[in-house]
Amino acid sequence: MSMLSTTAVASHSARNDCWIIVHGKVYDVTDFLDEHPGGSKIILKYAGKDATEAYEPIHPPNAIIDNLPLEKHIGTVDPSTVVKVVKQLTEEEKRRQALLANRPSLDEIINLHDFEAVAKVVLPDKAWAYYSSASDDEITIRENRAAFQRVWFRPRVLRDVSVVDWSTTILGQKSSLPVYISATALGKLGHPDGELNLTRAAAKHNVIQMIPTLASCSFDEILDAAQPGQPLFLQLYVNRDRSITKKYVQHAEKRGVKGLFITVDAPQLGRREKDMRMKFVDDGAGAKVQENMKVKKDEGVARAISSFIDPSLCWDDIPWFRSITKMPIILKGVATPEDALLAYDAGVQGIVLSNHGGRQLDTSRSGLENLIDIVAALKTRGPWPNPKFSVFVDGGVRRASDVLKALALGATAVGIGRGFLYAFCAYGQEGVEKAFRILGDEFEMNMRLLGARTLKELTPDMVDASALHSHVGLTPNDNLYSSVYQPLRTAQFKDGAKL
Amino acid sequence: MSMLSTTAVASHSARNDCWIIVHGKVYDVTDFLDEHPGGSKIILKYAGKDATEAYEPIHPPNAIIDNLPLEKHIGTVDPSTVVKVVKQLTEEEKRRQALLANRPSLDEIINLHDFEAVAKVVLPDKAWAYYSSASDDEITIRENRAAFQRVWFRPRVLRDVSVVDWSTTILGQKSSLPVYISATALGKLGHPDGELNLTRAAAKHNVIQMIPTLASCSFDEILDAAQPGQPLFLQLYVNRDRSITKKYVQHAEKRGVKGLFITVDAPQLGRREKDMRMKFVDDGAGAKVQENMKVKKDEGVARAISSFIDPSLCWDDIPWFRSITKMPIILKGVATPEDALLAYDAGVQGIVLSNHGGRQLDTSRSGLENLIDIVAALKTRGPWPNPKFSVFVDGGVRRASDVLKALALGATAVGIGRGFLYAFCAYGQEGVEKAFRILGDEFEMNMRLLGARTLKELTPDMVDASALHSHVGLTPNDNLYSSVYQPLRTAQFKDGAKL
Amino acid sequence: MSMLSTTAVASHSARNDCWIIVHGKVYDVTDFLDEHPGGSKIILKYAGKDATEAYEPIHPPNAIIDNLPLEKHIGTVDPSTVVKVVKQLTEEEKRRQALLANRPSLDEIINLHDFEAVAKVVLPDKAWAYYSSASDDEITIRENRAAFQRVWFRPRVLRDVSVVDWSTTILGQKSSLPVYISATALGKLGHPDGELNLTRAAAKHNVIQMIPTLASCSFDEILDAAQPGQPLFLQLYVNRDRSITKKYVQHAEKRGVKGLFITVDAPQLGRREKDMRMKFVDDGAGAKVQENMKVKKDEGVARAISSFIDPSLCWDDIPWFRSITKMPIILKGVATPEDALLAYDAGVQGIVLSNHGGRQLDTSRSGLENLIDIVAALKTRGPWPNPKFSVFVDGGVRRASDVLKALALGATAVGIGRGFLYAFCAYGQEGVEKAFRILGDEFEMNMRLLGARTLKELTPDMVDASALHSHVGLTPNDNLYSSVYQPLRTAQFKDGAKL
Amino acid sequence: MSMLSTTAVASHSARNDCWIIVHGKVYDVTDFLDEHPGGSKIILKYAGKDATEAYEPIHPPNAIIDNLPLEKHIGTVDPSTVVKVVKQLTEEEKRRQALLANRPSLDEIINLHDFEAVAKVVLPDKAWAYYSSASDDEITIRENRAAFQRVWFRPRVLRDVSVVDWSTTILGQKSSLPVYISATALGKLGHPDGELNLTRAAAKHNVIQMIPTLASCSFDEILDAAQPGQPLFLQLYVNRDRSITKKYVQHAEKRGVKGLFITVDAPQLGRREKDMRMKFVDDGAGAKVQENMKVKKDEGVARAISSFIDPSLCWDDIPWFRSITKMPIILKGVATPEDALLAYDAGVQGIVLSNHGGRQLDTSRSGLENLIDIVAALKTRGPWPNPKFSVFVDGGVRRASDVLKALALGATAVGIGRGFLYAFCAYGQEGVEKAFRILGDEFEMNMRLLGARTLKELTPDMVDASALHSHVGLTPNDNLYSSVYQPLRTAQFKDGAKL
Repeated sequence: MSMLSTTAVASHSARNDCWIIVHGKVYDVTDFLDEHPGGSKIILKYAGKDATEAYEPIHPPNAIIDNLPLEKHIGTVDPSTVVKVVKQLTEEEKRRQALLANRPSLDEIINLHDFEAVAKVVLPDKAWAYYSSASDDEITIRENRAAFQRVWFRPRVLRDVSVVDWSTTILGQKSSLPVYISATALGKLGHPDGELNLTRAAAKHNVIQMIPTLASCSFDEILDAAQPGQPLFLQLYVNRDRSITKKYVQHAEKRGVKGLFITVDAPQLGRREKDMRMKFVDDGAGAKVQENMKVKKDEGVARAISSFIDPSLCWDDIPWFRSITKMPIILKGVATPEDALLAYDAGVQGIVLSNHGGRQLDTSRSGLENLIDIVAALKTRGPWPNPKFSVFVDGGVRRASDVLKALALGATAVGIGRGFLYAFCAYGQEGVEKAFRILGDEFEMNMRLLGARTLKELTPDMVDASALHSHVGLTPNDNLYSSVYQPLRTAQFKDGAKL
Repeated sequence: MSMLSTTAVASHSARNDCWIIVHGKVYDVTDFLDEHPGGSKIILKYAGKDATEAYEPIHPPNAIIDNLPLEKHIGTVDPSTVVKVVKQLTEEEKRRQALLANRPSLDEIINLHDFEAVAKVVLPDKAWAYYSSASDDEITIRENRAAFQRVWFRPRVLRDVSVVDWSTTILGQKSSLPVYISATALGKLGHPDGELNLTRAAAKHNVIQMIPTLASCSFDEILDAAQPGQPLFLQLYVNRDRSITKKYVQHAEKRGVKGLFITVDAPQLGRREKDMRMKFVDDGAGAKVQENMKVKKDEGVARAISSFIDPSLCWDDIPWFRSITKMPIILKGVATPEDALLAYDAGVQGIVLSNHGGRQLDTSRSGLENLIDIVAALKTRGPWPNPKFSVFVDGGVRRASDVLKALALGATAVGIGRGFLYAFCAYGQEGVEKAFRILGDEFEMNMRLLGARTLKELTPDMVDASALHSHVGLTPNDNLYSSVYQPLRTAQFKDGAKL
Repeated sequence: MSMLSTTAVASHSARNDCWIIVHGKVYDVTDFLDEHPGGSKIILKYAGKDATEAYEPIHPPNAIIDNLPLEKHIGTVDPSTVVKVVKQLTEEEKRRQALLANRPSLDEIINLHDFEAVAKVVLPDKAWAYYSSASDDEITIRENRAAFQRVWFRPRVLRDVSVVDWSTTILGQKSSLPVYISATALGKLGHPDGELNLTRAAAKHNVIQMIPTLASCSFDEILDAAQPGQPLFLQLYVNRDRSITKKYVQHAEKRGVKGLFITVDAPQLGRREKDMRMKFVDDGAGAKVQENMKVKKDEGVARAISSFIDPSLCWDDIPWFRSITKMPIILKGVATPEDALLAYDAGVQGIVLSNHGGRQLDTSRSGLENLIDIVAALKTRGPWPNPKFSVFVDGGVRRASDVLKALALGATAVGIGRGFLYAFCAYGQEGVEKAFRILGDEFEMNMRLLGARTLKELTPDMVDASALHSHVGLTPNDNLYSSVYQPLRTAQFKDGAKL
Repeated sequence: MSMLSTTAVASHSARNDCWIIVHGKVYDVTDFLDEHPGGSKIILKYAGKDATEAYEPIHPPNAIIDNLPLEKHIGTVDPSTVVKVVKQLTEEEKRRQALLANRPSLDEIINLHDFEAVAKVVLPDKAWAYYSSASDDEITIRENRAAFQRVWFRPRVLRDVSVVDWSTTILGQKSSLPVYISATALGKLGHPDGELNLTRAAAKHNVIQMIPTLASCSFDEILDAAQPGQPLFLQLYVNRDRSITKKYVQHAEKRGVKGLFITVDAPQLGRREKDMRMKFVDDGAGAKVQENMKVKKDEGVARAISSFIDPSLCWDDIPWFRSITKMPIILKGVATPEDALLAYDAGVQGIVLSNHGGRQLDTSRSGLENLIDIVAALKTRGPWPNPKFSVFVDGGVRRASDVLKALALGATAVGIGRGFLYAFCAYGQEGVEKAFRILGDEFEMNMRLLGARTLKELTPDMVDASALHSHVGLTPNDNLYSSVYQPLRTAQFKDGAKL
């Protein structure tokens, strides 16, 4: 490949002759303009120029290489011709930098909510909208959290709890916590190192990371960052073109991935209105992470990056998956006892009771609520826990006490997605490590206070889940009466000052 | 009829000699002053002048023609004598124009709530009060919405949902949505084209409109605006004078209306306090759309326009209706299994489970809640769904997911009134079309996520309606305790700035 | 009695020689100072002066006459010696006058809440505190209201409701409404005419007033203001000295009172903290309405005026009451089926299910809730309704729909206290009449919409009271999660203005 | 011991030669620096200086004497060498002094909430954080209060309640109230006299105080302040070194303590985030009240002072306790029927149903809720109440009515901790006495209104506890709908002024 000056590249800046620079390489994207899932407009903005900065956060590094025919790989930019651009920080960016500098010190972070509070402030608006959004009225995302608060503890006392142990084994892999890192997409929107923050922190703390199909970092980048023998799982969106999926799965198995979590609750990605309001696609910043995408405009990041997902995926596909891999297969997104039994009978190794963090079907019930009925159904197939079949739960987890509730009700382990995502958005790898330490502290304390020395000692009678199925709606407020009722107040200070 | 100068008309401006101009015609209303449902005062304000602008929004075009004896039709105004009045916009009107100009673009409207948010701001206060108000404490109107949020989904996974289809047939008419446009009155209060916005949008999208008895546009105007073969239903308030009703119904059938929805929950229109507070009638702007009205003052638009409604309407009238029309007859406003069975046994073709959008009996239960008991009762008459009998639901619908819940519980289709009304108040016909598109997108997504490819595949086990009958009331707030309890906060930024 | 100059009176202004003027008469109260229930301090403030203005609102007119021995009635003030005092309005009083002038016109009052909203503003702080307060945390007062909102209607349709009739008979007396005016104390705190506002309005509208023992107007004043034959009831606090009670009851019967409501839920008046915070007694304005009071300081009006009430009153006293009067005897304040049956078996004519407007035992259940169990219990004594035994309900009633719910569940009639009290505080007698008209309008409408033409047609199946016993408490708010969750918003106007 | 000048002491201000002055005595703490539970930093701040003021509030007076070997007791400071330091009040301290001066007068305090409202304002931030904090999301602390509000009264009428008596016997000791003072730690943080405020007030009112292991005042100080024969209980945290515990318990018994309450719900103290956010330990103000503490940094006061507590305490230890003392043994912190029966069968004299004021395992149920199941379980061992076994309840008590509910459900007596703590923080001993008087007034009134003359007459049928087990979670708020719904308002005053 030839070496080109930036001036030479700049002369190809027309719709019918369009070159761009990414990571120091020059590409002819003229014929690709109409195929770009994010639309041609955003590419044309960089016609004849360096597009790396816009490309970076939402494409895996090899996306352009893999997608453009080799003859469109024009050459390499001559570094001597690159004019150092004194980057002008936008006002927005300056504001963010100031906020970052002003973050609470990591010492002051004492629970997982704190990470979210910091991330909410320091993230770019688009990243916050993409990460925090859920579908329709965002009722399920909140219900996920609320469900845990409807389960109450029945702690046992006077057991010798000098030593408590919350380590476990997940799909045959050791884990220091009964928690794995659930997949969340597009990590670079929130931090330049993206998902690698999780990989590195997980290695140090013996926690298992589930790699997302829609990671900002490429699969191999993540695997390369992992320690030898570090257990990893893979989350899979199944492609309309099964050959791509097959290649992807078999590559993962070859690189040592220990479990395949096939997402079954997303034949189409949900309408996430916070994300849609950001008009991400209108800005042209559409993302492309796999082939065969057909993008609708104006539907936010989620839709832009997900058009390759196959809505025809069905039970009949399961045998095929079993034929292409020996990894344990877990169906992620099961919500009913009916489907749990179908999964069991289909011979997969487990299910995740999940509603996709509230991002898919709104007013779906929480995984925790479904857990009770599903464990009851699975007991019709044999004693529980069943070593051949794992049941995971995710959604709304913020405290070790949440995890303990799920385990007491029969879950194998629990996934946390946003909790760790916000940790690295706010503090990078150190944030994730702090999150693990916080959970560890909480596990130690809560297991002592519950009277359970090991996870095996967590039993259903340690929780009162009788209110879990209660979804009441209050009589709407009596506004007239409320407006005339004068609330009681306590004694007032002598100067009547508001305190 | 003679041609008159405006000066000539102006000389008849006394209580005992009062002419007015409406739509370029001159009428002698001296003898009618005392009969005017909105009172004489408002007419006298225009004595000897052009009253068109005040008349327009709340009367059907032919109201004055039909109600005044022919000898009172004096003649036509000579256009050359009309002084062009440079209309002085009121401050209020200027403010509204600015708000309209400032509306979000239609692209930014992504759900049905958005239309309401815009309409609330851009509508004249009186129109907003009339449309948005409900009876007494407005508890039922809010309960209608809340009821949907008490039903939760039980989605099925791994079904091939490549193709999903939400079209249906309503009373034998094809509809692109399992939704019809429910009748709402006085459309011109909110938009100059009134109900025609709905008619035109419905034609383009194959949706069925129910024409209200109290439309601002006349029945024939609406029919004339419809496309050939466009299916339309008619909502009927039964007149104390049955001959008027008979004429109206038979005219409708002749013009091709496909279903007759007789309102049975409004022997008298409800006390709608928001509307009453606007003192609509005091301003003299009483409306008259049918004969035989006897209006009480100070009771808002609703009462002013509804005095013709017959409170003696009863089950004994049903055979008569069956004798005057072959249209399917639907009773709109049934709320109990007892009445549902009476309707079935009376041989009508269906019922609408409705509380009139919360505008009649406050603290009535929602149609959705009643649906469960009523479907159960109707099953005692044969298998459900029953091709001879339709059950519709309306009230509080804002999302396709709401509709899917009602269908899963046994409803035939669902009516939306205010949702489409606010759409045209905010954006005219285009707003209504956008509303259809939004619903379409929501149906596509939610059916995929539910695992239902057609409406037939929606089954009761896809929803958890166990909380639907729950109407709890919280223990009143413990104000003293709440005032001394200090809520937790997350970590603070270093400068302590409120973020 | 002699005629005295004000100068002569003024010379008796010492603790051991203390005269005061009330209503133009001179009294020697030297020996009474230590017996005054409100303390001597407040009297000494007026030693040698005219005390009428302070005396007036909280004593019945004849209190001083009845309580002082005849020899202490010194004489009459010579009017020519009275110096006209130009009364200086306090700032507070000026503010109130301005507010009164600024009241909404009576036309704008469209529900009973409106009266309360006006009264809250125009009443002196002490009067508002006394009237509006309830005991402890004021939970029961609000529960009274909330209970009605937990009962939902099941309206019937297609009944001929041309004519509806909500008149009834209460303890053999005709009433235009199924509602009576329940007793509330100290009416002159809120309006110079006190309880007479109710008497006069009741006469015009054929409503029955229950006269309170603790009225500001004397019993005879009220009877004198009544029309011949106007039915009245009497509320009775039983005195420690039964001879006083006997005299009072027999006098009432002689003057034609038609029912005796003995309060049984107030052996001691409740701690009403809003009232206590007003430090009414500290100001010296203690009230005395009956003899034998022993007042504790610092406990608000309620305690000051109630010390004569006998806490030893018990079931054994009932035969004695039956021996001294032939009026129907009703026990006011029954809360349990156990006591309802005791009352029935004791031969009284009825009970009021009441918690004293939330002013006695806080966190008591509402009368409406108790109604269900109590009617069920009374059915064990014979068919219901039982012509020999009435069950009334009071507490929290603001709408005719509330009344209809109670009647549907088996109540004979319903008492409204504060609703009418606030009406006259805000607008005098006209306010009370307007309140009757509002209720009448609401009865007409709601009975039509319910499908009940007469009160007899109100049946238990017209209400869904399944939630009435539900007293849930929410899981306390998850403050950290709530502080980081960002609520959805609708589309924004282009200028981003807050609307 | 020699007499030393302050100058002489000042010369020992190095890390390797560090003397400090406490209460006028000089100590060589060089070797102790690394053992200090609060860290060396805080001591070094006072190297060569007087540390009394920092030492005082969080150490019992004899802590330094008991912990330092005798040879490190250097001598006494020569008072003549002490330079009177004109103490500079900090701004914070000045603000607090002004607030204290401005407190409501004690007359205005009419309920227990008032004390908390005052304490919240006048306490130093650290003290408020330590006292008010609870674990994790502070859900249980609020649930404790809310649980009482879910129990409703069923009052009986027409019983002769002239005389009511709420005195009782607790573990054989007379008490004027069915309430004891529950242990709370570190009283001097809130008032210079610390726990002695309680001791002295308890003596005057015949109330029983439970002395906390973690008192600011030493055990003997408290006993010395007690009146002869004044009954006291002791709360015990069991030390890892049982010999210390044995000595402590036997000393207590010798000094006449009447009951031993062994805390069993705190093998480790909870994570109290309000407290943690105060970074108490970082300031170096770590506390040491017993030996063998190993303190983690950054975990607030609670962790700093509690490391000596033995997490291995278990049922097997109970016989040992029975062997070292004849005091009644009560297990404080039992939460399940299972453990209640174990306690009964282990031969102890009672249990406290407590969750440690919400400070240990968050989302534990309230003691009141557990009471129902536990009394039911204990009835399987014999009739209830059982003279051999007491069941106490604490947590969230603010009103006598709360106490009456617990007693009606079977509790022996009720503990109040924070209520009395806040009383002395705000008003010293007088505050506590006022709190007793308030409770007395409330008991008198509520027992009369309930129809119970003695505590024995409190029966389960006097309360409706059917909602106690209800822990519902609302459907999350429908934010979009709520933002467009316009609440009703009452009539407006003519000038439209906000009132």
